Amino acid sequence: MAPPVIADLRSDTVTTPTPEMRAAMASAAVGDDVYGEDPTVNELQAEVARLTGFEAGLFMPSGSMTNQVAIAVHTRRGEEVVCAEGSHIYEWELGMMAAFSGVVPRFVPAPLGVPAPEAVRLAVRHSVHQSPTGLISLENTHNKAGGTIIPIDTIREIRAVADAEGLPLHLDGARVFNAAAALDVPLSEITRHFHTVSVCLSKGLGAPVGSVLVGSAEAMKQAHRYRKMLGGGMRQAGILAAAALVALRDGPTRLKEDHRRTRELAEALVKAGFDVNLAAVQTNIIYVTLPNAAGQVAKWAEQGVLASALGPDSVRFVLHHQTGDGALEQAIEVLTA
Amino acid sequence: MAPPVIADLRSDTVTTPTPEMRAAMASAAVGDDVYGEDPTVNELQAEVARLTGFEAGLFMPSGSMTNQVAIAVHTRRGEEVVCAEGSHIYEWELGMMAAFSGVVPRFVPAPLGVPAPEAVRLAVRHSVHQSPTGLISLENTHNKAGGTIIPIDTIREIRAVADAEGLPLHLDGARVFNAAAALDVPLSEITRHFHTVSVCLSKGLGAPVGSVLVGSAEAMKQAHRYRKMLGGGMRQAGILAAAALVALRDGPTRLKEDHRRTRELAEALVKAGFDVNLAAVQTNIIYVTLPNAAGQVAKWAEQGVLASALGPDSVRFVLHHQTGDGALEQAIEVLTA
Amino acid sequence: MAPPVIADLRSDTVTTPTPEMRAAMASAAVGDDVYGEDPTVNELQAEVARLTGFEAGLFMPSGSMTNQVAIAVHTRRGEEVVCAEGSHIYEWELGMMAAFSGVVPRFVPAPLGVPAPEAVRLAVRHSVHQSPTGLISLENTHNKAGGTIIPIDTIREIRAVADAEGLPLHLDGARVFNAAAALDVPLSEITRHFHTVSVCLSKGLGAPVGSVLVGSAEAMKQAHRYRKMLGGGMRQAGILAAAALVALRDGPTRLKEDHRRTRELAEALVKAGFDVNLAAVQTNIIYVTLPNAAGQVAKWAEQGVLASALGPDSVRFVLHHQTGDGALEQAIEVLTA
Amino acid sequence: MAPPVIADLRSDTVTTPTPEMRAAMASAAVGDDVYGEDPTVNELQAEVARLTGFEAGLFMPSGSMTNQVAIAVHTRRGEEVVCAEGSHIYEWELGMMAAFSGVVPRFVPAPLGVPAPEAVRLAVRHSVHQSPTGLISLENTHNKAGGTIIPIDTIREIRAVADAEGLPLHLDGARVFNAAAALDVPLSEITRHFHTVSVCLSKGLGAPVGSVLVGSAEAMKQAHRYRKMLGGGMRQAGILAAAALVALRDGPTRLKEDHRRTRELAEALVKAGFDVNLAAVQTNIIYVTLPNAAGQVAKWAEQGVLASALGPDSVRFVLHHQTGDGALEQAIEVLTA
Repeated sequence: MAPPVIADLRSDTVTTPTPEMRAAMASAAVGDDVYGEDPTVNELQAEVARLTGFEAGLFMPSGSMTNQVAIAVHTRRGEEVVCAEGSHIYEWELGMMAAFSGVVPRFVPAPLGVPAPEAVRLAVRHSVHQSPTGLISLENTHNKAGGTIIPIDTIREIRAVADAEGLPLHLDGARVFNAAAALDVPLSEITRHFHTVSVCLSKGLGAPVGSVLVGSAEAMKQAHRYRKMLGGGMRQAGILAAAALVALRDGPTRLKEDHRRTRELAEALVKAGFDVNLAAVQTNIIYVTLPNAAGQVAKWAEQGVLASALGPDSVRFVLHHQTGDGALEQAIEVLTA
Repeated sequence: MAPPVIADLRSDTVTTPTPEMRAAMASAAVGDDVYGEDPTVNELQAEVARLTGFEAGLFMPSGSMTNQVAIAVHTRRGEEVVCAEGSHIYEWELGMMAAFSGVVPRFVPAPLGVPAPEAVRLAVRHSVHQSPTGLISLENTHNKAGGTIIPIDTIREIRAVADAEGLPLHLDGARVFNAAAALDVPLSEITRHFHTVSVCLSKGLGAPVGSVLVGSAEAMKQAHRYRKMLGGGMRQAGILAAAALVALRDGPTRLKEDHRRTRELAEALVKAGFDVNLAAVQTNIIYVTLPNAAGQVAKWAEQGVLASALGPDSVRFVLHHQTGDGALEQAIEVLTA
Repeated sequence: MAPPVIADLRSDTVTTPTPEMRAAMASAAVGDDVYGEDPTVNELQAEVARLTGFEAGLFMPSGSMTNQVAIAVHTRRGEEVVCAEGSHIYEWELGMMAAFSGVVPRFVPAPLGVPAPEAVRLAVRHSVHQSPTGLISLENTHNKAGGTIIPIDTIREIRAVADAEGLPLHLDGARVFNAAAALDVPLSEITRHFHTVSVCLSKGLGAPVGSVLVGSAEAMKQAHRYRKMLGGGMRQAGILAAAALVALRDGPTRLKEDHRRTRELAEALVKAGFDVNLAAVQTNIIYVTLPNAAGQVAKWAEQGVLASALGPDSVRFVLHHQTGDGALEQAIEVLTA
Repeated sequence: MAPPVIADLRSDTVTTPTPEMRAAMASAAVGDDVYGEDPTVNELQAEVARLTGFEAGLFMPSGSMTNQVAIAVHTRRGEEVVCAEGSHIYEWELGMMAAFSGVVPRFVPAPLGVPAPEAVRLAVRHSVHQSPTGLISLENTHNKAGGTIIPIDTIREIRAVADAEGLPLHLDGARVFNAAAALDVPLSEITRHFHTVSVCLSKGLGAPVGSVLVGSAEAMKQAHRYRKMLGGGMRQAGILAAAALVALRDGPTRLKEDHRRTRELAEALVKAGFDVNLAAVQTNIIYVTLPNAAGQVAKWAEQGVLASALGPDSVRFVLHHQTGDGALEQAIEVLTA
């Protein structure tokens, strides 16, 4: 029999809907979104567009879909997508950039998840013998680097590179709300430097399902076709949008608490002798390097603390609003026992 | 100002969730389905697999996705998909069979939506100079032919062709519940002749969102990867699955009523002089041939009856459980005035 | 032991290089065409561009490649290519439009290979629920329809449709020299109505290998990248271009002879009771409808006359410059015996 | 006016056909290879298969095509190709692995072009959340690393990894003859460890055009279809095959001379103060690191010595049989002046 779960720290995607979200879903005004008639979806799209500073938004069932639709919008087959090493669009989106858009990644070194603007510029291809660059894509916060933040100045400089090269700039903003919370800036301070942004509502914000892609009205028109191609056109999707609207209202303010608790856990782990790069612990993610990651994760699970083994010697903890201070304290006891 | 809607007959996808569905969504047990941990999704998948007679099922946000995932599972790039002319997988799924799976359609004539088994056999390609056939796909009921039914004997014969040619057979069962209701057979009597079946829950059954692909456990394992590639991996999807389970319980029994009303409307239209092929009116869809379809549809809309113009001279009506006898009577008055 | 071949009428691709071509190949000035430095390739490209009335040309190893590169240049993934039923780009290019460009065909009825301009217009898609049209493609002469000619007026009207719809127009000109010869017009009278034309040199003209795609300089720049992607960048390709230049000089004038002999053979076949649609015999191809095509073709082969069985009851004869009057007479004897 | 060229060291692809090749092309027996009837192509394919120790071979217009066809044969869409960083299949084949096969690269560090077997093993993916590995691909000699050789023991160990993981192993053998010459082993000592090998005839061996893919008869059957899809089916390709047969006969023995001269040039460059990693100079390629590569290359070109600037500070020299000892001496004078 599985033990009672003290803390599920595998990902911030594991949260279940709050009572407010359930109430909103139960009473949501809905319509057929394939016809563009779902008022709650329309409201959500408009709200995310407003918060990020874009003309329009498009709701989709996952952040993988919003990212891959953006790649399709910006590229032609055979081009390269310049991105930081370890980017989610490559590591966790199963070759979709190739299978659907017919493009390959061109990696840029990214210490702590932050690619140097000059490295981005050097990664852009010009030769007629090589694949031309079609898109530059950033990830903020950068999941695999540890939830690390790309500073706004760096974004600005990379946008300048993109402009100089005549290239579009996309943001995988799966955890862009975490970046904004950590930097203590409005979301749009980060997002306005991009041509499209994928904003996820089912990670730190806690919605059960959904991401919104934002961009120009023209880009969203193209995105609409690609969403339909991918099978992302849902009918009465307002059910999900209703919960997402609650997440959008209630979620952002909770993120600073997640970050505070993450810091607390990271420091406890270091104190207990674990190998954690504290410089990388900037938001709600912690990576621990240890031998036999899978075995250790299994042992902790038996004691009610769930984490992810993401390599032979790497364990990831992700904090979220459904692990409160009490649970965290208990989890720390288990982990540092 | 838009007039009050008497009857929205554009599609059976426009229904809104019933109170039972809303209640089920509000109280659904959910988990992170990307980890396979959503109990309600798991229940729905098992239930649809059971009803259709397959080992396993996989929940997705749309019937377009279940179809396109099935095509990806069965084919290799450059192959042909033999299908009836007017098939949804080609007409309404935006070239996705090409863009994702790299395959082209090979059409078979299909009077009233029913391809002759011998015509299917002749469409299979053998020459080394041509694209080999990778899959045979049927649609039952056939949307564009008017919601028409492929008889079980024909399915059996086409399966024999598939077996003789060593080819898999897929069913686009967006409205397979309508076929079962009209034929008065259990669902599995139709579905068991196929290797995979896409079952839609958001059409006649009335769920807000979702389709289930069913097949062997091995096929579903592959489907799982393709679903993730397409961005169809949703987190707490049990919200949607909860409504779909209610649809699955309550929906099928209502379909015969939809069919009865459809017949009534079709006969009224014929009586009023409209050009309707009554032989094609077998379930819940009616096609009317008339000049200036778009203009006529706009006029009816002003009077509260919504239909779809699907060509310069073609109008489609689709009946569903949210148009009762009273509303239908009013709609007939408007349409035959 | 195989009998001596009297006439190989399987295709006009079977001709072997003339002594003039062999001499040209043996002495050709060549360079590395991947660097654009092969003078003979450059000369061939310029000459075909001049003859067809375009800015630039690009040499490739086959007509399948020139067609598929053109499709890639003109389309984005998920679009439709409007083309005549039975088009070579679909029937004999193995799903490449899907596998590489991610597009699907949209067929237009084409009696005698000629699509009606109005039918082309109706095939163009506008709805946001459907795949948008990306390209209109014609084939002149139309191989599968029997080497039939699209009249210049029809081309002009279809170009007007393309312009009105804002779409590019491509010509599969595998046998466009045959069309020009039969119509007795300069090649450019036909080709100038298109945005790109694929011109084959290894069919009626008799070059051993190669086709040239022509279009604007900008289109050819894109084509260059796609050619490289497909592996069509050859090194000292001037060897092949040298033979093609001879074919270009000597070939066109011989085509009228091919057409005269084709007519002669067709009439002899009809006289002998074969089912041949003489209205379709307009250039160098004859289709005969007869039972057990493969068996009949095998019998004729035993007597030294080679033809192609292209279906269970369809045999194709293609005339070319290496079947002279004497051989034809002998072949007629065999075929009408 | 361009100066007389002393030595064209941009690539070993720039050689022009020898008189023996020209004579062979002028008298080659040819047929329509699309029908498999070109005797010279068949002879070449059999000869390369024999030399490499495989069942069958398939002639294609370029090494990019043989590589990309092999990738298509071995993979399904969405999979990963494990390969050394800097591999030609990624760096110089323009995203074709994505555009055609729908797969992405997974890079393994490769000091001097040699990936560690353990690093290859770690690059293979198992998680259901990630793209599965479909193929391991090596390049021997490794172009971008400097024409470096993968030792046979390393190949054997990587094959063991492939076997343990149930994966196919492909060799990009664009310069595998150089590796065999440098190791002083028969070609098959290297090639027999792979499932497919791409052998280029137009690099060091000096043929004007062409590569041969070798593998099992079943793999070549699939390769045949993919070759046709890519437009690589050529008609009287025996013209090219005839020259390739001469290259195959005369070329390999000349490679040791190329390597000796390359060493001589490299040492002269080092002596003159250039930054050359001599450990990487193992066959016929030299990389020099210097500032303003493009400018320096232009200056040398003015004096008749051609090299390639392959980055802002990187120049490549490639030796081949058309730069004899006298020319090399002159070139060294220019380069070290």
